[in-house]
Amino acid sequence: MTIAPQEDRLHAQIEFALEIDKLKRVIRRNTLMDGSRRENDAEHSWYIGMLAMVMGEYAPPGTDLDRVTAMLLVHDIVEIDAGDTFIYDSAAVAAQPELERKAAERIFGLLPADQAGRLRELWEEFEERRTPEARFAKALDRLAPILANHRTEGGTWSLYKVTAEQVRKNVKIIEDGSPALGRYAAELIELSVSRGHLAVS
Amino acid sequence: MTIAPQEDRLHAQIEFALEIDKLKRVIRRNTLMDGSRRENDAEHSWYIGMLAMVMGEYAPPGTDLDRVTAMLLVHDIVEIDAGDTFIYDSAAVAAQPELERKAAERIFGLLPADQAGRLRELWEEFEERRTPEARFAKALDRLAPILANHRTEGGTWSLYKVTAEQVRKNVKIIEDGSPALGRYAAELIELSVSRGHLAVS
Repeated sequence: MTIAPQEDRLHAQIEFALEIDKLKRVIRRNTLMDGSRRENDAEHSWYIGMLAMVMGEYAPPGTDLDRVTAMLLVHDIVEIDAGDTFIYDSAAVAAQPELERKAAERIFGLLPADQAGRLRELWEEFEERRTPEARFAKALDRLAPILANHRTEGGTWSLYKVTAEQVRKNVKIIEDGSPALGRYAAELIELSVSRGHLAVS
Repeated sequence: MTIAPQEDRLHAQIEFALEIDKLKRVIRRNTLMDGSRRENDAEHSWYIGMLAMVMGEYAPPGTDLDRVTAMLLVHDIVEIDAGDTFIYDSAAVAAQPELERKAAERIFGLLPADQAGRLRELWEEFEERRTPEARFAKALDRLAPILANHRTEGGTWSLYKVTAEQVRKNVKIIEDGSPALGRYAAELIELSVSRGHLAVS
């Protein structure tokens, strides 16, 4: 008996759906806003998807916010294979692109070719940060941990001995995607420094 | 010193952002696909947002899939106050609408009025299930636990003594949003029955 092409297609999509459930088990350094536990990639992706919905007005005019949301939902899926990289761990950051490229091939490759291509494009666009959509998406991805660390009075900054100088470099990435959110993040950082929750050096 | 209107607006949006982080702590009955733990509402919302992206072709032609995604990201936020209701617990299901209405008022009400209205509309549309977008969104919300229970050889069906008859009623909701996914869900259910993972009565 031959399988109808339609069924074959649904079968591939279901395989992908079962696979990406694993994103719920990829644990990030950052904690929830109440500091109770570290967050996972899946709930983080939901969170910044919501930020896109609520903070959209701070993206440059004409930014396609639905594309930003799609990018944010997809952006961490490669970490199922490649793992989460702490942005302040330079050695890990250097090794990451090759691991993530292979992961994208395997995981998106579970889908029918047209969809695999589409999701891969979204992920690459996010990583390359050339479009306003990607720059805004990345800004939200970087803003979320700053909110959490500010809220938890230092959080992973204190725990991993991150300095204000390092965090300020991140603000540049936020400014790149959204000047208004960049200014807000800068204020939070200086507030954290003044309260002794973020070391100057 | 008066606060500039723009700052006031961002302040409200940030309050909302901090509040909805709590969705990561609302625990559902269902487990992850590997059965390792119960899932939370935030990661579940991400998951079905991804399903919308991948299963969109099974929605009726003309369905606005970006609206489906937005609806799915927002649909469980009221559970921060109202809690998760197990769909097979009739008493809890009956009490839920009033709790959720109050929750919507409080939580979406943290946002500037225009945004509060927009998110509330998305949530109400999802609950009322009158538009193709809402019906498709609800179908995905109901499909995900069936995938997980099938994958975990019974999962919450066995644990809470849910019968095939009860689950088949859910399939009607999936069919309503997507005939193709309804057929697929029905197949999974009959397969689970035949393997002894779902009791007939």
